[in-house]
This record gives sequence, structure tokens and C-alpha cells, in this order.
Amino acid sequence: MESQITETYFLSAARCTPEDELPLPALVQKLIDIATLHANRIDIGYDRLIKNNCAWVLSRVAIEMERWPGINESYSVTTWIVSLNRFYSDRAFRICDSDGNVIGHALTTWVAIDIDARRPANLLSLFPEELPVKGDIPPVKPFVRHSQIEIADEVTPYTFCYCDIDCNRHVNTTRYVELLLNRFDLGFFDENRISRFEIAFQNEAHFGDSVDVKIARSDNNEFRLEIADEKRTLTRAAITVTPRS
Amino acid sequence: MESQITETYFLSAARCTPEDELPLPALVQKLIDIATLHANRIDIGYDRLIKNNCAWVLSRVAIEMERWPGINESYSVTTWIVSLNRFYSDRAFRICDSDGNVIGHALTTWVAIDIDARRPANLLSLFPEELPVKGDIPPVKPFVRHSQIEIADEVTPYTFCYCDIDCNRHVNTTRYVELLLNRFDLGFFDENRISRFEIAFQNEAHFGDSVDVKIARSDNNEFRLEIADEKRTLTRAAITVTPRS
Repeated sequence: MESQITETYFLSAARCTPEDELPLPALVQKLIDIATLHANRIDIGYDRLIKNNCAWVLSRVAIEMERWPGINESYSVTTWIVSLNRFYSDRAFRICDSDGNVIGHALTTWVAIDIDARRPANLLSLFPEELPVKGDIPPVKPFVRHSQIEIADEVTPYTFCYCDIDCNRHVNTTRYVELLLNRFDLGFFDENRISRFEIAFQNEAHFGDSVDVKIARSDNNEFRLEIADEKRTLTRAAITVTPRS
Repeated sequence: MESQITETYFLSAARCTPEDELPLPALVQKLIDIATLHANRIDIGYDRLIKNNCAWVLSRVAIEMERWPGINESYSVTTWIVSLNRFYSDRAFRICDSDGNVIGHALTTWVAIDIDARRPANLLSLFPEELPVKGDIPPVKPFVRHSQIEIADEVTPYTFCYCDIDCNRHVNTTRYVELLLNRFDLGFFDENRISRFEIAFQNEAHFGDSVDVKIARSDNNEFRLEIADEKRTLTRAAITVTPRS
């Protein structure tokens, strides 16, 4: 069984940001796609889990990019499993340009949940066999456990719409990422590129849910963000940017 | 030169609607992608036009679907040029399921514009050579020239955000489509599938532009939609639905 797989993509003009780069939400979707593909190939995917009434749920993502793929550029994503224990599995990604130069890394944490009970399942019971765990830890700063934003610089209300909802009938991962990026204006991204993005998913949102998107600048180049409804925090995130030279 | 090309796609769970089908905005993006690919292959694409300071602009789209590709299903899109005159070019699409059954068609109209003057260019001057025009007209009802919505059933304000903007620094085509679909709720699409969608792009919107999204029910299964700012209509659209049995 393959301990890692690599997929190559081409970034067409129609899929670029205003800065002619791969959009962060599109990269997050690609990470999910290739993780799904690898899980299926090594038989720990949807088909296997659903027999136990379970499904993979993405819990945390951290991405660090030195450079973003540009317009009409090919790039590749490689993924492997870093670790797997009773509670969660860490999965790593390496992003390379068309010459094979490493331009970024990502680390994700996944849990399996019982679909009806919405509670975590024991991964070691679900997968008693030996899995192709490669182990290499990507050079990404560990996840930070962010506290609640007490004093936000800006609070923006939002109500989730039809196109935000995916086939699980929850708000889609990439929509959260877009909602966060939309707190910044075009000029901000013209002047800055995202060097690190981190997000933790805590509670699921559904069609019609109304939330507040909060943003707090923690220093010049770092921002903390939060999506919360009246009762619960849905996600916490942090964005670090680097001025474009 | 190929008078038509076909591309095959796979619809993964992560890319489905809540009804486990291919989302309309994703289909519109696929039509644009394959049109771009075919134009490049027959050397009437971006690289050729930019030498004359021109670019293709999508003017109108009409899509009619008998059935939508479903979760974990393969489907194919075939495209060809129907006609090309001084002012515009019509391009057709056929959507088939994995058994080769035709499940839908689309017709699009494209114009070339001078990038700086933002005015239409003469396609016959740009392409004096003989082009591989296949000619077959797809079985899609012709475009309807919709008048302005005078009395809307609902008007929703919206301001375009960072993730709505593409590499041309205009609002992306699929974002208009999403904005229109978001005027309906989840229950509506659980009970109805889109059988025809039509959109005409009249003016470009930019980052930060504030618009009104207007909707008017013209009969039980037909809706007219409009996106307009204070001065201009940006797009007019019509959606026809069929109750799911």
C-alpha cells in the first residue's frame, strides 16, 4: 500500500485570485480531495468507515506557504499519514512547484465520528490492521490553542446560504475560509501574501444559521478570527501575512 | 484541428450540493474551463487575442438539464463552435452521463473585447482564417431578452467581497450564479431541481460594489432574477425548476 501519493494540478487563469495566485480556499479543497483519495486507496476511506456508521471529519488545518502557485503554473501536492491514535490522525502535505522545489507544507488533524451520535469513534478499533503510516512531521509550526476573542476590532454578521452547504448538509469547509478572508479588502491582499493560515473546527453550522465573524489584529502581520453564533464558537483561525516586496 | 473536444469529470462527495448533485455554479465553471481549453487548442485563445490587446468575455449562458450528475458519478462535457460572426460567437455544450446518455445541453455567447477600451472587437478581423466551426445547434430554447424587473418579490442587498473577485479583478461568473441561487432556501432545492438556467452579463462589477439582488416569480416554476447597482443592471437571469418526484 502506498504510504504517500502525489497529484499534479494546473492553475488556469479562471481559478486565480486577483493577485494571479492559487486561492487559499482552493488549496484547502485540494488538500481535502487528495486526503480523501489517499484514504480510499489504502482502504480507510468513506466506504470502510460507513460500514461502522462513521465518517472522517476535518478538525484542524495549518498551512505555511513560502510562495503560492501562480497563473498557468503546474504544482503538485503530496500527502502522507504522520500518526494515528485512538482519538485522531495527523496527515501531512507538501506542495511543490513544477521544478520540484518545495513551496509549502500543511498539517491536518482528522477524527472519525459516529454519524448519528456525532461523537468521536476509536480509530484503533476501526483500523486494527497495520496502516502505511509514514511518520515524517512536516516543518509547520504546531497548532496554537487560541482563546476566545474578547475584544474584536470588527464584528460582521453573516447568515449561511444555500451555496454554503455541502452534501453533509453542513457549511462547507472552504466557505468558512472564504468568510474569513472576506474580512480583508482587495488592497490588503495586493500588498500582503498569506504565509500561514490555521483553522480549528469546533462546531458545525447549518443552512440559515446566523453568526458573527470577529477579527482581532494581534500584531502587524497577524490576525485572529472567529466565527460564532449566540451560543457556540464554530471555528477559530489565525492568519499571518508577509508584505509583498 | 479538432472541431469538438470532450472532457470527462468525476463528481466527488466533497463537490456535491446538499441534494448530492453537481452544483450549477460548478457546471458553469466547467463550461468556461472546457471552452477555454478548446479555444486554446484551435489557437483562438487568450495567447492569440492578447496580441491584439483583446480578451474573450462571456456574454450569455443557457443551460438545460434533464438530470444532474450525482455523487460519485462520472460525466462528460463536449463543446463545439456553433457560429462566429463579426460581433459574437456561439458555443455549444453537451453533457452526458457515464453510459453516454445525453443529460443536458448548454449554449453560450462570447464576445471579444478590447481590454483597454472595453469595447467589442471584430471577430472576423481577429480570425481571418477558416475556423473549425461545427455548426450543430444544441436543443436549448433560444435566449430570451428579459426586461427590467419592475416589481420584485424580494430585494436583497449585497456587497462584493475579496473572494468574489477573479484575476481580471472583476466579480467572477460563478459568484453571480451563487448569489442568485442563494435567494432560494435549502428546502426549495430539496423539492425542486433546476431544469433551465439562463444568464446575461451586461456590466462588470468590482470589489466593494454594492448591489441589489432582485427576484420575481413569473409563474409557479419560473423565476426572473436581476443584479443591479444604483445606475446599471449587471446581470439578468431566469431559473426554471421541475418538482422532484
